[in-house]
Amino acid sequence: MSLSDIRRVLLSDTLAPTCALILRTQGGIEVTESPGLSTQDLISKIQDYDALIVRSATKVSAEVLAAGARLKVVGRAGTGVDNVDVDAATRNGIIVMNTPTGNSISAAELTCGLILSLSRQIPQAASSMKEGKWDRKKVGARDQGLHGSELLGKTLGILGLGRIGREVALRMQSFQMKTIGYDPIIPPEVTAEFGVQQFPLEEIWGQCDYITVHTPLLPSTTDRLLVSCF
Amino acid sequence: MSLSDIRRVLLSDTLAPTCALILRTQGGIEVTESPGLSTQDLISKIQDYDALIVRSATKVSAEVLAAGARLKVVGRAGTGVDNVDVDAATRNGIIVMNTPTGNSISAAELTCGLILSLSRQIPQAASSMKEGKWDRKKVGARDQGLHGSELLGKTLGILGLGRIGREVALRMQSFQMKTIGYDPIIPPEVTAEFGVQQFPLEEIWGQCDYITVHTPLLPSTTDRLLVSCF
Repeated sequence: MSLSDIRRVLLSDTLAPTCALILRTQGGIEVTESPGLSTQDLISKIQDYDALIVRSATKVSAEVLAAGARLKVVGRAGTGVDNVDVDAATRNGIIVMNTPTGNSISAAELTCGLILSLSRQIPQAASSMKEGKWDRKKVGARDQGLHGSELLGKTLGILGLGRIGREVALRMQSFQMKTIGYDPIIPPEVTAEFGVQQFPLEEIWGQCDYITVHTPLLPSTTDRLLVSCF
Repeated sequence: MSLSDIRRVLLSDTLAPTCALILRTQGGIEVTESPGLSTQDLISKIQDYDALIVRSATKVSAEVLAAGARLKVVGRAGTGVDNVDVDAATRNGIIVMNTPTGNSISAAELTCGLILSLSRQIPQAASSMKEGKWDRKKVGARDQGLHGSELLGKTLGILGLGRIGREVALRMQSFQMKTIGYDPIIPPEVTAEFGVQQFPLEEIWGQCDYITVHTPLLPSTTDRLLVSCF
């Protein structure tokens, strides 16, 4: 497949406007933007397209791929490809591409924001203030309200130590959190270089004040965090 | 003044329970906890006490200090002493003490949490989700909703580069923000050691994506951030 084989592209989810712009102006490609297509409509339309670009809403099932007689490539604007039947695509000779580095920093930053929001109950405090309250007493009373706790000296457990997990670790270390974690693929000596000591999963739970999960959605990672862990 | 001169202490704001506990058990001191005292009640009670401990609600005015015939020390559980008339205390030979390092880390962590909450609209997103929405489209549409922006590469302006400002700088640098700032006392070569380049105030405004203020409340720092700056 070369780029010149791609004449018509279907965008079946809402993508940044630059996506269609680049394809049209730099690629000279005919782009159809149809966010929110039903599966049935997608199946009936897909035969006219050389490529399909999705985010996460569109489910690119075996049925969709089989209907794509001209389909050469499925692009996933994002990291995980859990909404694409990659095996079926491979059987049909259709390439599946993703953008794994595209949102690593954003995901890591948001994670850090959520950790801080948990530790200081920022959404609850913002909501209370928007109701016209300035709940100083509530702030003072532990266990019943807005009293936060410092991250300094606490332990953060990171499950999945790829790009995102690594960026989260580096940021939260600046808060003087201890960062530990687990990854079935990335070796402990590699994660030690960015300050994360690995432990077997069953030794993680009891050590952590906070746990953050940065794994793809696979059968082996589903239902990983259960009440029974704690 | 020695500690043995302090027999009776009045706590006129809500303090952590450990405060009274330490005074009673380690100091053998008689402690009265009266949070929420009116100024008039405080003035009538203060004559019986050797020491007064406040947070920020109690206003320790010249009148209060004058009524404290036995008063030897006013303790402020926190950083700023703007709610204590320090000049009047000095005239009456009353020592004013604060705990300037006590909450630097907490204040810095909360500031970082608020910067991240701004950049990702976390309170708004939490509130939207609690209403049962999962506003993916709103996330996708810039300028109208929950679409965030990365901190990486952005510039943070820090006004006041003491303990708290420094801790904020160190943390936000891990997000690869550029940290600049201004402090009338701490020299540029000192702040350069923790990665903050100083500029005159009028050169700060135009460079910043985020501005955070960590100054005491003084006449010279009041009304510092005005619409006319921007």
